[in-house]
Amino acid sequence: MIKIAVDAMGGDTAPHSEVLGVVQAVQEYEVGAVLVGAEDRLREELRKQKATHLPIQVVHASEVITMDEAVSTAIRKKKDSSIRVAAKLVREGKADGLVSAGNTGACMAVTKLVIGALSMVDRPALATVMPTAKNRPVVLLDVGANVDCRPDHLTQFAIMGEIFSRSILGVPRPKIGLLSIGEEEGKGNELTKEVFRILKAAPLHFVGNVEGRDLFRGDVDVVVCDGFIGNVALKLSEGLTEILTTLLKKELSTYLSSQIGALLSRKAFRNFKTRVDYSEYGGAPLLGVRGIVIICHGSSPAKAIKNAIRVARECCVRRVNQRIEDEIKALSFMQSHAANIMIN
Amino acid sequence: MIKIAVDAMGGDTAPHSEVLGVVQAVQEYEVGAVLVGAEDRLREELRKQKATHLPIQVVHASEVITMDEAVSTAIRKKKDSSIRVAAKLVREGKADGLVSAGNTGACMAVTKLVIGALSMVDRPALATVMPTAKNRPVVLLDVGANVDCRPDHLTQFAIMGEIFSRSILGVPRPKIGLLSIGEEEGKGNELTKEVFRILKAAPLHFVGNVEGRDLFRGDVDVVVCDGFIGNVALKLSEGLTEILTTLLKKELSTYLSSQIGALLSRKAFRNFKTRVDYSEYGGAPLLGVRGIVIICHGSSPAKAIKNAIRVARECCVRRVNQRIEDEIKALSFMQSHAANIMIN
Repeated sequence: MIKIAVDAMGGDTAPHSEVLGVVQAVQEYEVGAVLVGAEDRLREELRKQKATHLPIQVVHASEVITMDEAVSTAIRKKKDSSIRVAAKLVREGKADGLVSAGNTGACMAVTKLVIGALSMVDRPALATVMPTAKNRPVVLLDVGANVDCRPDHLTQFAIMGEIFSRSILGVPRPKIGLLSIGEEEGKGNELTKEVFRILKAAPLHFVGNVEGRDLFRGDVDVVVCDGFIGNVALKLSEGLTEILTTLLKKELSTYLSSQIGALLSRKAFRNFKTRVDYSEYGGAPLLGVRGIVIICHGSSPAKAIKNAIRVARECCVRRVNQRIEDEIKALSFMQSHAANIMIN
Repeated sequence: MIKIAVDAMGGDTAPHSEVLGVVQAVQEYEVGAVLVGAEDRLREELRKQKATHLPIQVVHASEVITMDEAVSTAIRKKKDSSIRVAAKLVREGKADGLVSAGNTGACMAVTKLVIGALSMVDRPALATVMPTAKNRPVVLLDVGANVDCRPDHLTQFAIMGEIFSRSILGVPRPKIGLLSIGEEEGKGNELTKEVFRILKAAPLHFVGNVEGRDLFRGDVDVVVCDGFIGNVALKLSEGLTEILTTLLKKELSTYLSSQIGALLSRKAFRNFKTRVDYSEYGGAPLLGVRGIVIICHGSSPAKAIKNAIRVARECCVRRVNQRIEDEIKALSFMQSHAANIMIN
């Protein structure tokens, strides 16, 4: 049975949400889990949730990397942090993947350091699954693992995103877009112009440049970009959604003063939140590492943890990493073959 | 009297909105205007709006660059386009500034070509004024005029944005932020790290890195970035606002089925729209050209054109261009002085 290690100490509501998410996951899916963190607290939480009989292991870790800790120092100093112990379980083959709602930067750095990248992958990429107007999610990557990318990095992101969309989100032939500033081939910066040329020749369903405006339209399945721009785009979207919802709520409440009106608007906002709720998709997969890593929001509720475990399990079942290795290998073979033909 | 040339043919509802905006502007502010475009249609529109007695000149231009036209070809082929004729009026000193709701790319290219940059400015930058949660707008630049910027370009953007915020938006000592991916100095890509170092030493109220999440929070007055990322951020914000409003409207309408409910929610949405309405600020100033250029949305209503004329007028009155020249000169003197001290 596939087994997922869960960093149970990283999130804002840890370890409660983590333990609850694990308990729900092992009950709903065919999956085993390892809770990593302060053993006493975790066993107590399991008792509270009447879940001691479930196939959930507990592995002790004495430290936690907090949300606002500087990543470089935290990694150097906290050798027994829950995320690091969880990553070691994956490296040693004692778990097939890991889920964490902790400090995203630390989680990326630790897993890259401890688990390492797949042999064909130059840079693992953090992908996020975002809701769109068409109720058909879009995968945006990289959203923060890498800055100052080279064109071949973005090409690998496209392949990894395509495999994730196909294998996990079930899109038969994902449409790949390149985040840029104008739809025509000649538009963009030096990086995107070169990536456009490469992706056009690659065996992918590349649909060309996608503008910021079109990201949430639901016409493209995977959008690739440098991690700097992806991270700005992701955080901007989160911030704007929050602000717009607050503004509109305030505006409505001045009109809907009756209790019934307030109730209705609360209901509508709740439904709306579900539609734009990232936790539906569990979290952000860090694609391209030797093992499956899903990074959740710090504020992840149990449902997000549960969904992240489901996604991690599916990545293992559908052999996402093997596919990534195979397809990057195939593309570089194709590219060197084409280069040889040009030389001879 | 300050005189503004208005490209009357570029917008989606041209020339109606343009003429109406001009008519309102010359009535409300102490400003003269030149309508540039198909003379017959413009004179007819002025007659319709009973505005033939107002101090509005008409200058004929036989061509229009359309919204979806490729910029490079349009500029080469359409020598008598309304935007080009308007730009010539500015170059020849027959107008002090210009306003256009036409093809943004063409407008930037034509004005840079015909009017040219200020002597101290390496690259003019397109700035956009965006609403925030605090009802205190933020100036974001560059949003599309320049890609692959060097650190000194972003430094000039900071100076130009600061002057605009101070002179036109009336912020006494604007806080300047640098769009990046993490708040600490060491976070970001190669470009932002270098810009951070320069801005820290410059005589500006530099508050450090600003993340995508914080752009709309209203804690910073000016945010600088490379034009690629600024354009993605701008278009993403526009697209997301549109989609969120549509989704929420749909959601509410399932609950507020009574006529009264629908009316209330319509009212709330209208107020909300005013709060996030870019047209309040007229349009996007292209800062750093010899003359004042304000580029409006293609869908600009008369109010946006009117406000753009007001902003263009104020830029002239408050001598924004002279200030830009002076302050960039002062900074480069300071930098070369500091370099000399280090050498000796």
